[in-house]
Amino acid sequence: MIKIIGVKEKCIEQIESLEDLKPEKYNIVWIDCYDPRDEELYKISKFLGISISDLQAGLDDQEIPRIEEEENYYLIIYRTPLLEEYSTSILGIFIKDNIVLTIHPEKIKSIERIYNIVITRNPNVFKSIGFFIYVILNEVTRSYSRILVSLEDELEELEDKIISGFDQKIIEKILHLRKTLVYFHKALIANRDVLVLLKRKYLPIIGKEDKENFEDLYYDTLQLIDMSATYREVLTSMMDISLSLENIKMNQIVKILTMVTTIFAIPMWITGIFGMNFEYMPLISSPYGFWLSFTFMLISIIFFIYVFKKMRWI
Amino acid sequence: MIKIIGVKEKCIEQIESLEDLKPEKYNIVWIDCYDPRDEELYKISKFLGISISDLQAGLDDQEIPRIEEEENYYLIIYRTPLLEEYSTSILGIFIKDNIVLTIHPEKIKSIERIYNIVITRNPNVFKSIGFFIYVILNEVTRSYSRILVSLEDELEELEDKIISGFDQKIIEKILHLRKTLVYFHKALIANRDVLVLLKRKYLPIIGKEDKENFEDLYYDTLQLIDMSATYREVLTSMMDISLSLENIKMNQIVKILTMVTTIFAIPMWITGIFGMNFEYMPLISSPYGFWLSFTFMLISIIFFIYVFKKMRWI
Amino acid sequence: MIKIIGVKEKCIEQIESLEDLKPEKYNIVWIDCYDPRDEELYKISKFLGISISDLQAGLDDQEIPRIEEEENYYLIIYRTPLLEEYSTSILGIFIKDNIVLTIHPEKIKSIERIYNIVITRNPNVFKSIGFFIYVILNEVTRSYSRILVSLEDELEELEDKIISGFDQKIIEKILHLRKTLVYFHKALIANRDVLVLLKRKYLPIIGKEDKENFEDLYYDTLQLIDMSATYREVLTSMMDISLSLENIKMNQIVKILTMVTTIFAIPMWITGIFGMNFEYMPLISSPYGFWLSFTFMLISIIFFIYVFKKMRWI
Amino acid sequence: MIKIIGVKEKCIEQIESLEDLKPEKYNIVWIDCYDPRDEELYKISKFLGISISDLQAGLDDQEIPRIEEEENYYLIIYRTPLLEEYSTSILGIFIKDNIVLTIHPEKIKSIERIYNIVITRNPNVFKSIGFFIYVILNEVTRSYSRILVSLEDELEELEDKIISGFDQKIIEKILHLRKTLVYFHKALIANRDVLVLLKRKYLPIIGKEDKENFEDLYYDTLQLIDMSATYREVLTSMMDISLSLENIKMNQIVKILTMVTTIFAIPMWITGIFGMNFEYMPLISSPYGFWLSFTFMLISIIFFIYVFKKMRWI
Amino acid sequence: MIKIIGVKEKCIEQIESLEDLKPEKYNIVWIDCYDPRDEELYKISKFLGISISDLQAGLDDQEIPRIEEEENYYLIIYRTPLLEEYSTSILGIFIKDNIVLTIHPEKIKSIERIYNIVITRNPNVFKSIGFFIYVILNEVTRSYSRILVSLEDELEELEDKIISGFDQKIIEKILHLRKTLVYFHKALIANRDVLVLLKRKYLPIIGKEDKENFEDLYYDTLQLIDMSATYREVLTSMMDISLSLENIKMNQIVKILTMVTTIFAIPMWITGIFGMNFEYMPLISSPYGFWLSFTFMLISIIFFIYVFKKMRWI
Repeated sequence: MIKIIGVKEKCIEQIESLEDLKPEKYNIVWIDCYDPRDEELYKISKFLGISISDLQAGLDDQEIPRIEEEENYYLIIYRTPLLEEYSTSILGIFIKDNIVLTIHPEKIKSIERIYNIVITRNPNVFKSIGFFIYVILNEVTRSYSRILVSLEDELEELEDKIISGFDQKIIEKILHLRKTLVYFHKALIANRDVLVLLKRKYLPIIGKEDKENFEDLYYDTLQLIDMSATYREVLTSMMDISLSLENIKMNQIVKILTMVTTIFAIPMWITGIFGMNFEYMPLISSPYGFWLSFTFMLISIIFFIYVFKKMRWI
Repeated sequence: MIKIIGVKEKCIEQIESLEDLKPEKYNIVWIDCYDPRDEELYKISKFLGISISDLQAGLDDQEIPRIEEEENYYLIIYRTPLLEEYSTSILGIFIKDNIVLTIHPEKIKSIERIYNIVITRNPNVFKSIGFFIYVILNEVTRSYSRILVSLEDELEELEDKIISGFDQKIIEKILHLRKTLVYFHKALIANRDVLVLLKRKYLPIIGKEDKENFEDLYYDTLQLIDMSATYREVLTSMMDISLSLENIKMNQIVKILTMVTTIFAIPMWITGIFGMNFEYMPLISSPYGFWLSFTFMLISIIFFIYVFKKMRWI
Repeated sequence: MIKIIGVKEKCIEQIESLEDLKPEKYNIVWIDCYDPRDEELYKISKFLGISISDLQAGLDDQEIPRIEEEENYYLIIYRTPLLEEYSTSILGIFIKDNIVLTIHPEKIKSIERIYNIVITRNPNVFKSIGFFIYVILNEVTRSYSRILVSLEDELEELEDKIISGFDQKIIEKILHLRKTLVYFHKALIANRDVLVLLKRKYLPIIGKEDKENFEDLYYDTLQLIDMSATYREVLTSMMDISLSLENIKMNQIVKILTMVTTIFAIPMWITGIFGMNFEYMPLISSPYGFWLSFTFMLISIIFFIYVFKKMRWI
Repeated sequence: MIKIIGVKEKCIEQIESLEDLKPEKYNIVWIDCYDPRDEELYKISKFLGISISDLQAGLDDQEIPRIEEEENYYLIIYRTPLLEEYSTSILGIFIKDNIVLTIHPEKIKSIERIYNIVITRNPNVFKSIGFFIYVILNEVTRSYSRILVSLEDELEELEDKIISGFDQKIIEKILHLRKTLVYFHKALIANRDVLVLLKRKYLPIIGKEDKENFEDLYYDTLQLIDMSATYREVLTSMMDISLSLENIKMNQIVKILTMVTTIFAIPMWITGIFGMNFEYMPLISSPYGFWLSFTFMLISIIFFIYVFKKMRWI
Repeated sequence: MIKIIGVKEKCIEQIESLEDLKPEKYNIVWIDCYDPRDEELYKISKFLGISISDLQAGLDDQEIPRIEEEENYYLIIYRTPLLEEYSTSILGIFIKDNIVLTIHPEKIKSIERIYNIVITRNPNVFKSIGFFIYVILNEVTRSYSRILVSLEDELEELEDKIISGFDQKIIEKILHLRKTLVYFHKALIANRDVLVLLKRKYLPIIGKEDKENFEDLYYDTLQLIDMSATYREVLTSMMDISLSLENIKMNQIVKILTMVTTIFAIPMWITGIFGMNFEYMPLISSPYGFWLSFTFMLISIIFFIYVFKKMRWI
């Protein structure tokens, strides 16, 4: 799907198709292209004069974030989070003259949010190309932040659950969170490398005042990397702790089993002995025989309960 | 809440509200602002000419410690420990002309302590703005130190407990300590980066003699980082050890279970055999039958006890 | 086995044997030598004037990737994946004048693929020696990529299996994947070092336009290293998770055992007591004796089931 | 406690108290101060003109090793091992003019040894201030070496014990060794940083020939760091191994339990069946009934023993 | 033991004792000294003019590999593997004028091999002092290589064993291999540092053509470090895997135990019930009583077998 916006002196126009677009009429043109069909890709390629294989860098989920200065255009590859799936996807930003092309294989909420802001409200985000790129990257970075903050709540919750009780669902949850943090960490570190470049050696399209914005963004990303590292450590602690807790519980269960088996071993043996059918057995015809054996069994039971209490098993 | 102190030639004045404050009358003005309401923040923003969104850097718990030189003010972000909760919070220090603004979302004991020292005793801490900032950061660093030293005692205690016995409470304690150390470590490392800057490239507001103070503070912080790293390693050792101890205990419990089951297996079988109701059974009518079977059972029991003793299970 | 191709002005000739080869007749000559017999190696050595012991650098699986500039030739050692075995092998590329010799102990699919492309289709890959080397290294790098992508699918599958159930086969699979990733990681990191050199200090045989190709290849390799690192982390998570899951299952099994033993302990004791053969036993001749004892047994069973339900074991 | 030694042209004098000391009379004066009372500290402070708070750097166990050049004196902070406790403590060396002050909170054997050497034998250690400092640091470093070598023997012993049998005492031993190595490693790394400085930028008090001594000491310390790192890795291996061994033992114990339970399950059931009191039971009045059932039980027992043998449990 | 060889214009002479040796008569003199007695050490010290304490650097197993340029001699300390014990020892090479002294506390196979080559075959290894040192270090490095390659086979074997079955012997083997790899890794990394120096800043005794040899040796050592690191990772994987496998087996054993206990619980209870001696019991005098109870027991057994099959325990 392709959406096109042209900005002409603070006035925003939505353009239906690439065929209608005359870039020279506008200050800035934004083309957003999400999961394009082959023909759409072909059209864009033809319109911008960028080869399809180059464009596909923005659609290949395996690409790593970076900046490329080509002869006639700039390319920024950035990693964005996917809100619903706690995973990450790729976003390619091509800048050629006054045209900014954002291309991505997945629907990205941050892009949608900017699109809505642009249409419904002020066209301030189009102050300059540099600023517009900052707005995009900023929005993406803020969506990491949102997810990580919500992760913190989940972590707190998990911790309570681990101590109160531990089951397979919690483990699946931990597995899930850990994978998310692994992917986020990688994405953020790669994004940071992009921002380092943007804040240092400014591309010609990035003005001095934008550079400061990118510096802020850089620090925000450092924060997020820090957060994700801390969360992973906390998660590892949790796994260790939960393993220990499982072991403690196991010990207690096996203690119960051992106690029950031990306490009843001698009484059962006694009932076995007097259950034998020998003709000549001691006590068997004594009127006190039953009570004697019963008392002995009780003593044995009480003795072992006492022993286990002494050993602090109960 | 906002507290204001003005220092005029070694004489300290408490000022009720921002409206009454005339900074030009004093050598140094200290405004401490804790968990401000929106209107308070607005007032401060207006008074200092720093935008609310900038001020909020000192209130956002996710900010990372750093120094910022803005056009008309300086900002130091620092992480402080929260004594009661073994966690950390943020402290923002804004310096504009002769005004020092400390702003923080949580009540910070170190700040309170300085406030009390200032009011009740000498105004020496206001020698210069650089020195006053040193006093604040020093007080914060010392509160880390206090907590870490108390942690060491807890660690020693834990160790004794782990060897003597191990239960869920100890594990929760370890989980807690570990999380504290993770957060402290991160905070201290970030603070160190601030101090590196303060001791090297001195801000115009920091005199040469202050620089040396910050160097001492820097070494103190290195010490604390070292301590927290060592404690974490010790804690990891403890977890490993406790897991092994749990395993050893488990082994002993299961050994008891196995011994009881094994020792009584044959005697129970014998009682079972002679408890059957066949009309023609060997020994059944012999006067020695009972004692023979009983002796055999005893032999079996003693034999297995002997075997287990040989195997060093008992 | 030796295969020889000579390129003369866009025209490709297959040459049967080294004896027939006159390198001065061609623009570029490619000699591919796979698992050579001693006599073949001797022939090549004589033909190229490179000593056999030097040639063997391309056949020794323990060699590490590197570039060597010798007096009269260049050597590139590179690690290639072996598709079927998920392992890696060595590829030596010797460049002397207009001759490119690829030598390797194992059959390498990437080389075969290039050979087939060359013969059946256009001779574009022979634009220049630098470009031809790029084509080889690129093809090798892409085969890593293919395997890693297929690994990702296997990882997803494994994860589902781990949560639904866990057995020895899965563990063997994990062991296998982990070993593969260890070897891939090492190989890719070593290859990266080769590419760093090729993209920076260009060998005389590498033109400026090739340098950019190697830069792309370098970034692709970084991607692959990144992927393999991430996969290893995910794999480690899986192992941890699976250990925890095993523990949880164990707990549940032992709970069942403990419950069964505990629930039937008292009923069995009761049947034992009333199975004794004392002449004088209480209740024994009462008409309600049986039902009384049976009721008591049932109560005991129900009581313990209730207790275990309370403890959330069932 | 304060001990004072003055050296005058190869002649050594013990001086009773600071009051009697005239430093200008001697070539070198050594003041050793161990766990000083407040008044002693005060005296030293007054005598040397170094503030008490500065002197306390040599008494605070939390200080990290470093060198400080103050206006009128030099300070070296160094970590020494405590022989009996396998822990480390602090040693402060203050150098002012021709006076060397060693100050420490704990009794340090290395210092005592030097003291005894000095008094009973030759005064060679006082060749120069630089050499004397070298002698002190060398003696401290050698005491690390002694302890680490004795640790190696303990490790060898532990290893044998782990394989032959494993109990709580061994675990406590491992915990103890590991903690020692953690603290030693930290101390040695910090000391190394001191030696790097002493061997590079020589303090004015350190002559050229001393510099070489410090270089040797530096390499010795590297060796010790290496040793302690290796020992820690070996210790970690041991923990892992011991955990595995515990698991294997557990398996064997539970195997025995399972075999006993399984082997006697059917025989016990059979005795149970024929122990029932039904009036009409098959075989019950047959003269072969007992032997038939007995044979069947034996077959069942032998069958399961055979099965377990097949499964390699026995 | 001391062995001496003198080389005079391609002609090799074995010299009996140091007293007979006139170094000026030869191009190169090689003195090999293994585990020397005190008097031998004394002789060598006197002959070479190197102090005994300096010579002992080549006999102290704790020394770390390094190069030392002394006033009148060079010293190279290198780590060699001990073939039979899978451990490492020290080798000191002293070079003074045209004399090369190799001194070592343990018998080193590589040295013996060179000695035999020298005596029986050509004196080529004595081309120059630099080349002779290269030959020694090369031979040592190749003996690491031999051991590591044999380790790989052992690893492959271990892996098969781990999956097919796991016992204490395997664990001891792993412990052993891991320790070997730890010590090898340390030794190789230290040797690498020596080779870096030899290939960069060439000692005056090392000619330009030797430098290239050392560069090759350097790459070989890198290879070996790489191999040992990879093997250690594989070994760690194995330990993790084996732990998981043990857990899985344990689960299966406990499952059997639980199944046997559960399946026979109700049948045993029933036999217990009808084994009681109450005068009035239901079914007891019914001709179908026995078969009814027996059928019920069978149903119970079959039911639980079915349940466990459903749970996939069987």
